[in-house]
Amino acid sequence: MSHATTAYARLKDRFARIALIGEAQAMLHWDAAAVMPPGGAAARGEQLATLAGLAHELLTAPALADDLAQAEAEGEWDAANLALMRQAQSRATALPTALVEASSCANAACETVWREARAASDFARVRPFLEEVVRLQRETAAALAAVTGLAPYDALMEGYQRGITAADVEPVFAAYEGFLAEALPRAEERQARRPAALRPEGPFPAAAQEALCREMAGRAGLDFAHARLDRSLHPFCGGTPTDVRITTRYDEANLASALLGVLHETGHALYERGLPPAWARQPVGEAAGMAAHESQSLIIEMQACRSDAFLRFIGPRLQAAFGGPAAPYAAENLSGLWRRVERGFIRVDADELTYPAHVILRFRLERALIGGDLAVADLPGAWNDGFATLLGLTPPDDARGCLQDIHWHDGAFGYFPSYTLGAMAAAQLMRAARAGLPDLDAALAEGDLSPLTGWLRERVHAQGSRLGFQDLLRAATGKPLDPSDFTAHLTERYL
Amino acid sequence: MSHATTAYARLKDRFARIALIGEAQAMLHWDAAAVMPPGGAAARGEQLATLAGLAHELLTAPALADDLAQAEAEGEWDAANLALMRQAQSRATALPTALVEASSCANAACETVWREARAASDFARVRPFLEEVVRLQRETAAALAAVTGLAPYDALMEGYQRGITAADVEPVFAAYEGFLAEALPRAEERQARRPAALRPEGPFPAAAQEALCREMAGRAGLDFAHARLDRSLHPFCGGTPTDVRITTRYDEANLASALLGVLHETGHALYERGLPPAWARQPVGEAAGMAAHESQSLIIEMQACRSDAFLRFIGPRLQAAFGGPAAPYAAENLSGLWRRVERGFIRVDADELTYPAHVILRFRLERALIGGDLAVADLPGAWNDGFATLLGLTPPDDARGCLQDIHWHDGAFGYFPSYTLGAMAAAQLMRAARAGLPDLDAALAEGDLSPLTGWLRERVHAQGSRLGFQDLLRAATGKPLDPSDFTAHLTERYL
Repeated sequence: MSHATTAYARLKDRFARIALIGEAQAMLHWDAAAVMPPGGAAARGEQLATLAGLAHELLTAPALADDLAQAEAEGEWDAANLALMRQAQSRATALPTALVEASSCANAACETVWREARAASDFARVRPFLEEVVRLQRETAAALAAVTGLAPYDALMEGYQRGITAADVEPVFAAYEGFLAEALPRAEERQARRPAALRPEGPFPAAAQEALCREMAGRAGLDFAHARLDRSLHPFCGGTPTDVRITTRYDEANLASALLGVLHETGHALYERGLPPAWARQPVGEAAGMAAHESQSLIIEMQACRSDAFLRFIGPRLQAAFGGPAAPYAAENLSGLWRRVERGFIRVDADELTYPAHVILRFRLERALIGGDLAVADLPGAWNDGFATLLGLTPPDDARGCLQDIHWHDGAFGYFPSYTLGAMAAAQLMRAARAGLPDLDAALAEGDLSPLTGWLRERVHAQGSRLGFQDLLRAATGKPLDPSDFTAHLTERYL
Repeated sequence: MSHATTAYARLKDRFARIALIGEAQAMLHWDAAAVMPPGGAAARGEQLATLAGLAHELLTAPALADDLAQAEAEGEWDAANLALMRQAQSRATALPTALVEASSCANAACETVWREARAASDFARVRPFLEEVVRLQRETAAALAAVTGLAPYDALMEGYQRGITAADVEPVFAAYEGFLAEALPRAEERQARRPAALRPEGPFPAAAQEALCREMAGRAGLDFAHARLDRSLHPFCGGTPTDVRITTRYDEANLASALLGVLHETGHALYERGLPPAWARQPVGEAAGMAAHESQSLIIEMQACRSDAFLRFIGPRLQAAFGGPAAPYAAENLSGLWRRVERGFIRVDADELTYPAHVILRFRLERALIGGDLAVADLPGAWNDGFATLLGLTPPDDARGCLQDIHWHDGAFGYFPSYTLGAMAAAQLMRAARAGLPDLDAALAEGDLSPLTGWLRERVHAQGSRLGFQDLLRAATGKPLDPSDFTAHLTERYL
């Protein structure tokens, strides 16, 4: 920091240092999920807590606050960067170091126990750990609410996606609940009238699936000189912009789950890879938020790779990889398999029509948990009741109910709405991309995603966090979030 | 730190925090060597430099110095812990943060280029990077010399093994050079009179080698709930005491190199696993130094696993794993293969008789590099001259000369003597263990290393850093380092 002569230049150095600690954390998180032996979990929790505490101390140091008070920045990017620095610092100063470290420890401990609890479908085992996580998240939310002027749950949401509150989300979700109540029975009816799709015959060896996943991720633009593909219980995209780490899990009875999951994570990875290098490790050089991130994974997985055009390309590749007759790999048949609407218990297996119902349930429950209107002990019951109301089914056990997701057990509250906001943004971006790129579907039919990813790189990835979610969409598509593009897409594809 | 009420208790918290940063660094080092895509190297260098800088700042903070000035500790372990804290702090305060960060960056950059330079046997490619590393190491040595009162090279050595100086090492090495000049021709002559050993026929598939390595490491006591075995260019043992990471490389034409390498790294790993948990993350809970560490790898690899007794056990296991006729796997034949004396260019492939010559060469060269008596540009020539003097051979290229080892290219100067001090200590410990455990060789003949590893755990591993190298040997064997146990072992095995 010795060479920086202005307050803003010093701040850039300070934030770069904090970002580098974040990169170390990202790698240790990946390691814990993908390769760490179980005996390393306790120490890993302490390592991550220590790094979180150090980053927090740097961000809340008086000298950084002094620089923020003096700093001036000219130009759109620098001004946005400085504003994001101020926001990050004010959120961080709201939280005492002891709370940050306690949360990191509690999250790591809970996540470890959750892995066993989910395997055994034993909510009681994880309950005390989750209670501690929720207790600390409530404390965090209250502290953030006090400095941001937001409601406690909104203050947590802001940590994942700037500029969106529960009050914005509620009507969008309520409207979707109404749309779904009408659309779901119609889609099921239409589906029932069609001949049943043929299932390709397995098993599909994990090694062959992995080779295909690697090829398809590469074809979508992922450069393995800067990326890895590994296995973990809960697929994710982690790492850093120059070293992204995506993971998946292989089901040898199902050729689609890993492949489409990897294409999904590849969408996330391309976003990280495409962030503006000139702003690396600065707040404005980060992705624009979790809803923006999810729009990038879903536009690849749902909009592009499940399109009629791409199905025509992928079918013969699947047959070449796994053998057997051609009929199950015909595009029309794959569309019956991969765009099948089905009420199910598991969010990550849900089709795009029912997926928002899973999110709406979690949004309501986590808001109640943070608001103190729901006790952790009552979560399984509340989950099952809400699920029955939204999708007409009652989970047979907690593994297929409230234990299925890692998020809450890892301390992530306020994240879930991003999935559906991202799905809506993906539909809106795809519609705009199609309008701007008349040959987009012809390219997809040849397995060429580069027109789409090039369009996204320029309009989304390279923008970093310069724009908030709504402004980003406005600049890319000409309008702020418009959920009707999503329902129009669903209507066209399913009704 | 808020709950610690005495200066010493606060120091324990401070050092635990510093140790946790070190654990994060250890994991990132492992990742870089074992799994990182090449495109992640630049960012990794910056991440490691940042963590090194943070740890250094914590260790040199005025508040820590104040606590050290006030702290009192009762009891042998606490007193030793406090003394080690004082030593660590005084070494660290000698080094400005900028120098520590510059070294970490320069080391990472040099190591990356070295991987290419070694592959291409192109010293010129790495030379400017190594010059920068050496320049910063000289600066480091000078700064440490000023506070420790040691000579610059000795001050670096102390960072790897306390209580040993070049003046201690020189006569031991000079005596060994004399022993070798006489013993090597005799051993070669004796070997030449015997029938040539039969080579088991390969190839030995890497997957089968890996399975065997994993089984043998487990048999030696490595618990894979707290360990991993992976691949890297330069085998090493990294990670943390509850999550040790060992690596190896597989040569499909040679069944022994990976297996014996893994047994070697397992010796290191058992030391880390056996450190006293009550003193985890405290200076006194660490291993006693690099020579002590090497004694633990070599006692497993060289003393135990190349003993007549163990060869009788391992032969049939090898035949079962790789097939072919039994004759090459007979103990007598394996001893001809695995205890073959051969003047060669590569240190890590050297037999235990000629290995010290490799170390003596490096000791002399690195001392001259640090002392300013040798320029990096002159290193290849000096290497080749010295090698010819010690072993009568001239390396045909730098890949088989001064480019072969990672150490200097990663900034490690003063480390090399530890290999031979460790070999000598291993012989001394083995002799004492045999005296104390009359059934040791009978157990080895059944592939049972537990009597030996149990003896080591109690006398070496569980001692942490409570004792210096000489006192540790005195407590375990009844005398300080006695190189005659090593030459006696070599005489018995080779002459």
